Amino acid sequence: MKVSELGQFGLIDIVAKMIEEARDEQADSWRNLLTGIGDDCAVWRGGIDNQLAKVDCQVEGVHFNLDIISWEDLGWKSLAVNLSDIAAMGGIPQYALVSLGLPPHTEVENVVSLYKGMLKIAKSSGIAIVGGNMSGSSRIFVDISVIGKTGNPEGKYLSRSSAQPGDRIAVTGWLGTAAAGLEMLTHHLEFEAKISYCLSQAFSRPQPRLEEGRLLVKEGVRTAIDISDGLLADLDHLCQASAVGAVVEIEKLPIRDEVTSAFGEKSFEMALSGGEDYQLIFTARPEVIEKVQRSSAYPVTILGEIVAQNAGQIILINQEGKRVRPKAFGWDHFKGREG
Amino acid sequence: MKVSELGQFGLIDIVAKMIEEARDEQADSWRNLLTGIGDDCAVWRGGIDNQLAKVDCQVEGVHFNLDIISWEDLGWKSLAVNLSDIAAMGGIPQYALVSLGLPPHTEVENVVSLYKGMLKIAKSSGIAIVGGNMSGSSRIFVDISVIGKTGNPEGKYLSRSSAQPGDRIAVTGWLGTAAAGLEMLTHHLEFEAKISYCLSQAFSRPQPRLEEGRLLVKEGVRTAIDISDGLLADLDHLCQASAVGAVVEIEKLPIRDEVTSAFGEKSFEMALSGGEDYQLIFTARPEVIEKVQRSSAYPVTILGEIVAQNAGQIILINQEGKRVRPKAFGWDHFKGREG
Repeated sequence: MKVSELGQFGLIDIVAKMIEEARDEQADSWRNLLTGIGDDCAVWRGGIDNQLAKVDCQVEGVHFNLDIISWEDLGWKSLAVNLSDIAAMGGIPQYALVSLGLPPHTEVENVVSLYKGMLKIAKSSGIAIVGGNMSGSSRIFVDISVIGKTGNPEGKYLSRSSAQPGDRIAVTGWLGTAAAGLEMLTHHLEFEAKISYCLSQAFSRPQPRLEEGRLLVKEGVRTAIDISDGLLADLDHLCQASAVGAVVEIEKLPIRDEVTSAFGEKSFEMALSGGEDYQLIFTARPEVIEKVQRSSAYPVTILGEIVAQNAGQIILINQEGKRVRPKAFGWDHFKGREG
Repeated sequence: MKVSELGQFGLIDIVAKMIEEARDEQADSWRNLLTGIGDDCAVWRGGIDNQLAKVDCQVEGVHFNLDIISWEDLGWKSLAVNLSDIAAMGGIPQYALVSLGLPPHTEVENVVSLYKGMLKIAKSSGIAIVGGNMSGSSRIFVDISVIGKTGNPEGKYLSRSSAQPGDRIAVTGWLGTAAAGLEMLTHHLEFEAKISYCLSQAFSRPQPRLEEGRLLVKEGVRTAIDISDGLLADLDHLCQASAVGAVVEIEKLPIRDEVTSAFGEKSFEMALSGGEDYQLIFTARPEVIEKVQRSSAYPVTILGEIVAQNAGQIILINQEGKRVRPKAFGWDHFKGREG
């Protein structure tokens, strides 16, 4: 059935029921919720923690293409990208508002699949979806706002603007895996099953590093950003915000074997400029980073160093300390990819 | 200059500067803000009040048409419709996240005008814009999430679902004025200046009834909804949520002289089914409504009564108590207008 046949309110009823069924009394967010979907606003009991909020939008033809991502994965990913921002603050996500733009010919079952994916990651992250909006639109968009809290009594959180010269630059997990997934799916490339699965999961089901974000705060890290536009682009944002420069050793880039075996030399470019890995870049004194490495179950790799010189610039060096040039920087939504 | 020439980050810089200049240290929201635009999330000091949140979206060609609304008015209105939902809960708005979808050929100065309008109403409502997103899109959309608080120590707020048989139904201000404005602007109708101004302001610069919403809570009202889709459609939502029926006397509808003198008989239909007035419908015991009428500087009109019979139905009667039939109900975004 098309959404135009069912109508806005019929569709809201279906979605509201799915969300109600996903209610989780174990989660603080649900326990503190006083009014969810079905009134003019959502209402929940306030806390004395610092509050966090973030909005992010996925637009058909700009951020996603239904030829290479399923509706369920789109639902997962649309919420995941927001959670990644909460992770980059070291916070705990609590509530989400979901605003959809849907062409009238959209199949209702596709909207149901979208919510299935969204509710899966909502459940595993303790999030209550407490409101939303549905609009007609010529192209699909999924615009999600997430509200959270710092989750520690001192209200501490990570920021982009506190990097200091002498800090080491570290990253969680691996780089370029999502870009490799995008490349594989776009060009219908075939690899052995284990590789295909690894790459497509990285692209379609990114795992926001919420646990690692909280660990960073706990271990005394103060500076972080998540990787949505690519290592170079996002490290650049961090350097700009902190008015510092960065030196990155390209041989240190953590790249999965699956990526190098599928794409060889191109893996470096993917790791430097590929977006959507949703890993965390963070900076801290060497001894703080060592503490993080010891206490994290998930890999943490040191990539380079924050420097006072060349504020806002990133210098790439090789093993011999020689400067190398990056091929591409991140993505600009209006300009397209920049050289 | 086009946004495609300036690029996403250039545009964000301009907007962030406008918002920073609008910073208002008199407002609680700004005083409690720890991190605004420019980091992964906004951060503010939490309160012990109950928290409110709402998202609403304006899509070009669905909700607005730039032939009849200016960019500045669009900015005002996009935020106003959200504030109206906070008003319908009797709450205080505090923070806003603004997600824009913009075609690459959009003029930068138009985006600046949009923010001008948004910042005007933000300022007069004590709101800090603390984050946002900009995406490429084939059509313009303005998706705003607003976060607020109940603003009273008991955490009391208004809901749709607490109407009781015997409650009187009341409405703030006037009905059908925005619909008359839309009709005038769409069909290029000409009226004397005073009428044109009244109608176009109602349509382009709706005033969310924040003060009245708080007054309702203070005077003991428990049930309210705002009018976005039209009196009948929104009263229907309230009746459905409360599992009650309603009887409305059509001669009681508060209609501005400007509307009746411009549209004659059609004014009734506009008052019943016209959307976007952003007034509040509320229900309470007669003595509570009388208290509200005495303490409100803004007009409050009693329209009818909540009844136990015909749950979810609205019956229209004339002066003689005879039943009359409505011509149209509200708007469905996927189905269009329903008969």
